[in-house]
Amino acid sequence: MHFTKAQIDALEKHTRTHLINSLSGYKSANLIGTQDLQGNTNLSIVSSVIHLGAHPPLVGMIMRPHSVPRHTFENILQSGVYTINQINKSIYKQAHQTSARYDKEESEFDATGLTPQYFDDFTAPFVQESRLKYAVKFVENQHLAINGTELVIGEIMDVYLDKAALQSDGFLDLQAIETVAITGLDSYHTSNKLTRLPYAKK
Amino acid sequence: MHFTKAQIDALEKHTRTHLINSLSGYKSANLIGTQDLQGNTNLSIVSSVIHLGAHPPLVGMIMRPHSVPRHTFENILQSGVYTINQINKSIYKQAHQTSARYDKEESEFDATGLTPQYFDDFTAPFVQESRLKYAVKFVENQHLAINGTELVIGEIMDVYLDKAALQSDGFLDLQAIETVAITGLDSYHTSNKLTRLPYAKK
Repeated sequence: MHFTKAQIDALEKHTRTHLINSLSGYKSANLIGTQDLQGNTNLSIVSSVIHLGAHPPLVGMIMRPHSVPRHTFENILQSGVYTINQINKSIYKQAHQTSARYDKEESEFDATGLTPQYFDDFTAPFVQESRLKYAVKFVENQHLAINGTELVIGEIMDVYLDKAALQSDGFLDLQAIETVAITGLDSYHTSNKLTRLPYAKK
Repeated sequence: MHFTKAQIDALEKHTRTHLINSLSGYKSANLIGTQDLQGNTNLSIVSSVIHLGAHPPLVGMIMRPHSVPRHTFENILQSGVYTINQINKSIYKQAHQTSARYDKEESEFDATGLTPQYFDDFTAPFVQESRLKYAVKFVENQHLAINGTELVIGEIMDVYLDKAALQSDGFLDLQAIETVAITGLDSYHTSNKLTRLPYAKK
């Protein structure tokens, strides 16, 4: 099958949204935990977390400032910190529910029944039910003028994980801790490991 | 378990690379097809393809200019076009092999046995064995000064897909066409669909 550019442009808006969101493949499923300076907590599902580098350890995510995760972006700019919590099979329905349009004073923790968790003096809330989560210090945002999105870049600080995931070479087995992936806008998946492959040589 | 920032910094380099690469969750697995102005084809596996928007249809990817995919980035800048080809279960080993350090005159198509495919007058090669692939027109790159990577932004043009993937609302069933996901640097996975969830409301 073939969709030309003109045919894609002519698709009904939601159909086009589903189609284009499916093209980028499996997406990482995470909850972003933040808190504003008044102590209001926020939790939002984000499918655009992306590895940027290991030396230094950097993570990126794409945010739409004028859409649902606005509170998240504002809280990050205000507080300078956030948490990234991988979503697992036990909490994906609650995680999805955080995408509803709650007011700033309503916490998605209360609305979904997920449990806020704090470590040491880090002010952003973690999700207790997540089995792999980390503290992130905001570094910078790059505005993408072409469509008004923001690439938010952060430095990975403390990492908290279920030890079932950790392998001897540092690799984390996400299947063992039932981390889920997203396809399109709304489909959730667990995984079947095929294999790990050795470093490729000519 | 808890890794502090200081413990992460002190990890052996490859251990840290595996650990940090695992934090971002499931990654999209794609082959990027390009051609230079002399007609040399290149194919490189990229795990950083990311949805940027559907209106207009935009896709991003992170490239390390001084690392393996340099030929890909140079070819994109030269030719202005590239292809993104989802990797499926039948070709993931060949796809992984494209990450070896081939010279610019050596085509990864020849080296791996994957088949170049051309549509109409689009000059970048597709991967015939891929069941979901699309033509991309280069729009811009944003240099991320913090670690020297580049965010490459492209506009999605023609889309070619196995009709087994297409559902009535535009959603593509990646499990039906055996698209794979990557975790860490080198682990490949197929998926088990849990469910699609409805648009979340308060």
